[in-house]
Amino acid sequence: MSGSTLRYGDKVVIVTGGSKGIGRGIVKVFVENGAKVVFCARGVAAGQALEAELNRAGPGSCKFVPCDISKEEDIKGAIIAMTKAMAVDESRYQVRVNCISPGNVMTPLWEELAGQTADTLATIKEGENAQLLGRMGTEAESGLAALYLAADATFCTGIDLLLSGGAELNYGYKSQVP
Amino acid sequence: MSGSTLRYGDKVVIVTGGSKGIGRGIVKVFVENGAKVVFCARGVAAGQALEAELNRAGPGSCKFVPCDISKEEDIKGAIIAMTKAMAVDESRYQVRVNCISPGNVMTPLWEELAGQTADTLATIKEGENAQLLGRMGTEAESGLAALYLAADATFCTGIDLLLSGGAELNYGYKSQVP
Amino acid sequence: MSGSTLRYGDKVVIVTGGSKGIGRGIVKVFVENGAKVVFCARGVAAGQALEAELNRAGPGSCKFVPCDISKEEDIKGAIIAMTKAMAVDESRYQVRVNCISPGNVMTPLWEELAGQTADTLATIKEGENAQLLGRMGTEAESGLAALYLAADATFCTGIDLLLSGGAELNYGYKSQVP
Amino acid sequence: MSGSTLRYGDKVVIVTGGSKGIGRGIVKVFVENGAKVVFCARGVAAGQALEAELNRAGPGSCKFVPCDISKEEDIKGAIIAMTKAMAVDESRYQVRVNCISPGNVMTPLWEELAGQTADTLATIKEGENAQLLGRMGTEAESGLAALYLAADATFCTGIDLLLSGGAELNYGYKSQVP
Repeated sequence: MSGSTLRYGDKVVIVTGGSKGIGRGIVKVFVENGAKVVFCARGVAAGQALEAELNRAGPGSCKFVPCDISKEEDIKGAIIAMTKAMAVDESRYQVRVNCISPGNVMTPLWEELAGQTADTLATIKEGENAQLLGRMGTEAESGLAALYLAADATFCTGIDLLLSGGAELNYGYKSQVP
Repeated sequence: MSGSTLRYGDKVVIVTGGSKGIGRGIVKVFVENGAKVVFCARGVAAGQALEAELNRAGPGSCKFVPCDISKEEDIKGAIIAMTKAMAVDESRYQVRVNCISPGNVMTPLWEELAGQTADTLATIKEGENAQLLGRMGTEAESGLAALYLAADATFCTGIDLLLSGGAELNYGYKSQVP
Repeated sequence: MSGSTLRYGDKVVIVTGGSKGIGRGIVKVFVENGAKVVFCARGVAAGQALEAELNRAGPGSCKFVPCDISKEEDIKGAIIAMTKAMAVDESRYQVRVNCISPGNVMTPLWEELAGQTADTLATIKEGENAQLLGRMGTEAESGLAALYLAADATFCTGIDLLLSGGAELNYGYKSQVP
Repeated sequence: MSGSTLRYGDKVVIVTGGSKGIGRGIVKVFVENGAKVVFCARGVAAGQALEAELNRAGPGSCKFVPCDISKEEDIKGAIIAMTKAMAVDESRYQVRVNCISPGNVMTPLWEELAGQTADTLATIKEGENAQLLGRMGTEAESGLAALYLAADATFCTGIDLLLSGGAELNYGYKSQVP
């Protein structure tokens, strides 16, 4: 294994919901590492724009397919349990199943929701301060986590990779009591 | 970020206990990815041999320093707690602290212990069957996990990366009752 | 707090799916500890029989209501995530939300499924051997876990109480590879 | 099993470090539930006073033995790992091993440390606000958790009972970056 070759050269990747945010970060990192990526999302214009941009940059390639996976997203709470169950079921075919638990990652959705609050900048600052590291995660960091799981984590199955900047450690102001 | 550059080029890494097993896997992967590695271990001959071998291969380089860190190893049980505590303390300096929990990884120590049992091959087979994936982990997989944490997991701190082939999932024969 | 008083005297408890198995264990333990339990299940005969039996024994009381909550059960995989989310949301009302992750607990459903295998006794033995403790859990142990969470765990919210006899610890035969 | 009997009647319990704080909470709850408790601590006066007080109240009894277990406390970070390892080792003797991870519990040590800060009341308020539940845990809640593990959690081994008021859930101000 050498660090100077493409980490996912010519392998095929499917990403659902990949036109923006974490999904976009994943599509981008895989294309940068040589993969052939098929990604789908509801937003046709955003999807086509990303497809064109990434295919220009290479070295991998990608293809956008419009689709609506919003119902799938609704059950996100079940993903860790589903990952473990599928890891057991699929291991007989040598298929690994892992997931990522992202904390505060700066995405268009995050920005949009912050924009709907009374003080957008204060909301963003609060989001940044929720992590030990004092900042939010990036789309690229999400993509690199997915690339690790796909390309290098060949002895990992059923794990949940925590991508949270240490937000669950130490004490902070948490009281919900009025 | 491009997949065709060295993932840890010219960065400095210190590995304690790196002349064999998981430590060796870590030293090797970092040198292959361009790092300057200082590693220490008790075994002088093994350390010097690994140093020579890896420096020939490059593209990074390494330096072996004889040392005895066996006491440090004895407290391995505390590593997850120590990792979380250090992640909190060091985050103010933008230093991340993470750890890896390896399950059955085939190392010289594992082989040596298996060789001391009544039926070496049966012991190794049992070790392999303890994972959903039906095999043990490798030194290289350990190294790649460490490389991910060091090079790409820039939004992870205080996490424990489970490298176990799914050994903790599903049911198996566990009864200890005679 | 004194050990000689009823642990849940006159408090109201609602149990969904309580006519057999783990639900029955929970209904029983709460009635034994003085609670007023409303429980529902699909099986009318079993529900009424349990209602009569427990009301005779006391010191608490119970009321059975026929209902079908099977859809609710289908999403069991999401329970830990839902528990944590609800713990956050409800804490402002001083309401705690916790869950139990039962491993192999001997229930009518377990027995029924074992009866459908080629060798019922071997299947049951296998189920028992999956735990460090060499046996399955009981309905009563499930009930006592729920009683602890309800009556005594007043500083716990969002936790997942693992009731598994140590099945997830140590190594066992897990390989799924043919 | 009936709720109106003593939950740990005539059983023997050993508590190290039991003259104040969480240890005192554990000693007290066990004596209240009928146990015969031997507890040790460095502080002779505090230990003897607690011994006398609890023996007056009953219904169980306790005996104080002066001892210094401070070294043991230093390795507290290793307790979860040690608990799991001991759970595996001791299960062959049908011995269960579990632990409690207490978060902010109001103890004499907590009060003492708060008293050394510039603004004692603000420090205590901050400690209370670190939990979803908006308050600290109590010694009695610690004792009840230990009683559950000892008396009722007969199908639990190797578990870590989280007693934290939800401090690890949701986001709070955590940034350590200056």
